[in-house]
Amino acid sequence: MNIIINIPVALKSIRNHFSPKIIGEVNDVYIKIVKILGEKVPLHNHVNEDELFYILEGALEMEIENNPPFQMNKGDLYIVKRGVNHKVSSHNECHLMLIENKTALHTGEVSVEITKSIKEQK
Amino acid sequence: MNIIINIPVALKSIRNHFSPKIIGEVNDVYIKIVKILGEKVPLHNHVNEDELFYILEGALEMEIENNPPFQMNKGDLYIVKRGVNHKVSSHNECHLMLIENKTALHTGEVSVEITKSIKEQK
Repeated sequence: MNIIINIPVALKSIRNHFSPKIIGEVNDVYIKIVKILGEKVPLHNHVNEDELFYILEGALEMEIENNPPFQMNKGDLYIVKRGVNHKVSSHNECHLMLIENKTALHTGEVSVEITKSIKEQK
Repeated sequence: MNIIINIPVALKSIRNHFSPKIIGEVNDVYIKIVKILGEKVPLHNHVNEDELFYILEGALEMEIENNPPFQMNKGDLYIVKRGVNHKVSSHNECHLMLIENKTALHTGEVSVEITKSIKEQK
């Protein structure tokens, strides 16, 4: 039998920023939580995978290539469609839920300091 | 370009209980929100689809066949694996996020008064 995961409690166990943690799987997608602080995510895309961002705490700056950046606040949900270049940052710590296909690479085809493999997200 | 969905605002537009509303899609899964009040969901399963329950407001009674029922509270997340008989109910109004494959039927192979087609969930 599965266990109940309490999201606020699970967030407390995450110490590093930009380090997604897989907390569940629903068929072909992973459910992840992550803490963001600052500007370390490069512009990237996931060729075949949509990516859902749901704000649990704080505010996130979302930038879609060739569009003005916009702010997402607690309770907001936004889906970046596959192939769309995007990056996220935050002025203060922001807590997110991410939903994306298991095949999605953390920072797309771009590999930077913060890039984590799926193994590192477990 | 997609639009931001604010979940608390989206919940205000839902008037009927047991009537899931699709608010987004991530590859092969739908993201839904739903309000539950009372005991109208029959014991059912989804043969090929896992189903994620995330409590946004209130408390949910979760019953997995042959196991003691348990309560889920705000911030709790639980995944019912494919093929597992389950039902949910609540004493007071409970708001949920559901994540499940697009092929999942609302109440599995069981059709009852509250059963909604995918078309009715859009």
